[in-house]
Amino acid sequence: MKVNVMRNLMQSNDQFAQKTRELMADRKIKLFNLIGSPGTGKTSVLEAVLPVLKKKGYRCAVVEGDCHTSRDAERIAALEVEVVQINTGDGCHLDANVVSKGIGELNLEGVDFIFVENVGNMVCPAEFDIGELAKIAISSTTEGDDKPIKYPRLFLESKLVVLNKMDLIPHTNFNLRDYKGYVAQIQANLPIIEISATNLESVIPFVDWLEKSNIQNRQTPIE
Amino acid sequence: MKVNVMRNLMQSNDQFAQKTRELMADRKIKLFNLIGSPGTGKTSVLEAVLPVLKKKGYRCAVVEGDCHTSRDAERIAALEVEVVQINTGDGCHLDANVVSKGIGELNLEGVDFIFVENVGNMVCPAEFDIGELAKIAISSTTEGDDKPIKYPRLFLESKLVVLNKMDLIPHTNFNLRDYKGYVAQIQANLPIIEISATNLESVIPFVDWLEKSNIQNRQTPIE
Repeated sequence: MKVNVMRNLMQSNDQFAQKTRELMADRKIKLFNLIGSPGTGKTSVLEAVLPVLKKKGYRCAVVEGDCHTSRDAERIAALEVEVVQINTGDGCHLDANVVSKGIGELNLEGVDFIFVENVGNMVCPAEFDIGELAKIAISSTTEGDDKPIKYPRLFLESKLVVLNKMDLIPHTNFNLRDYKGYVAQIQANLPIIEISATNLESVIPFVDWLEKSNIQNRQTPIE
Repeated sequence: MKVNVMRNLMQSNDQFAQKTRELMADRKIKLFNLIGSPGTGKTSVLEAVLPVLKKKGYRCAVVEGDCHTSRDAERIAALEVEVVQINTGDGCHLDANVVSKGIGELNLEGVDFIFVENVGNMVCPAEFDIGELAKIAISSTTEGDDKPIKYPRLFLESKLVVLNKMDLIPHTNFNLRDYKGYVAQIQANLPIIEISATNLESVIPFVDWLEKSNIQNRQTPIE
């Protein structure tokens, strides 16, 4: 019984994801799903990246996920970027259904990029296809270097790792070489871009990646 | 259908929790459930606290939860404290059933404290009663000061907040006054103990709290 219900939920999820994927393809919009722990710096990374993309002439929109509050959406709105906030209550992830509803509230005219900031959680969001072009793992040095092997699913599903808070390494016991080795254990050749969201220069390689990205994300099937 | 299945799961969970709670009462063991983000420092806090409790003559045991690896259990075992590792795979929390199995593998003779280190996740673990005396929220300054209002359930269910990485505040934009205000918004008078797991002196007030603690945790009923 439990398994059947779960499978039906996932089938329904994947149908919504497929519809979103087709909509994004029709409109030539790149949809990215940002996943990471609470406080890893997902919103701060967006605050650094969105003005750069805007300056380059791209139009961006954001779907913000959080259990409660619209704080992150307010930070994005302050950049004059269109944003929708989804509050999940006790819900631990965004699924394809709620994301498609969020996207439905955006004006998609001329939009080039949509960023979905998932609920702060390294576990559950990694399991859900929301119709994204790619999942991006946002990780930070203050969380320690062993997170890739402790929470491998996220690093298996993602097409990029953005390692934030590089400026704080001197104050921690984070070992960059070990971290890279752990990421490679989970997915060989997964690119890692090192940034400090507070240093705007440092996000340029991430912007380049977003511009060039045209990979098609594939969800690992649930067994 | 979905709701019924969820309710049955929770009923079954609460039966296991009740059995654990009775076992702990019989044996006069204090069971604490440590919950917080990946990398917030749950294991580091235990590494600081366990030797102090040991020196005071208490016997401790630990149940470690993680998606993958036995790294945390190895760190605890290095302190010569009995420990059981539970790997949840893609599971995002420990429920009362798996915790009772974990406790079943410990030698409870003379044990005073059992610490359950939950899966790194601020959302899902807060919803599950595992038969603990108290849930303890482990939070850290590098995650930002707004987490209590974004992930309120944890701060509603917990009987104590341990705020870790106080030593890193000068390198962040964390505002301690705002943080305390946000915690009070969720639960007035919830105690907050400020520590740096790397500064062993700083954990003494936490040890005092653990020794004095005899409150009975009550789970907020699922609606």
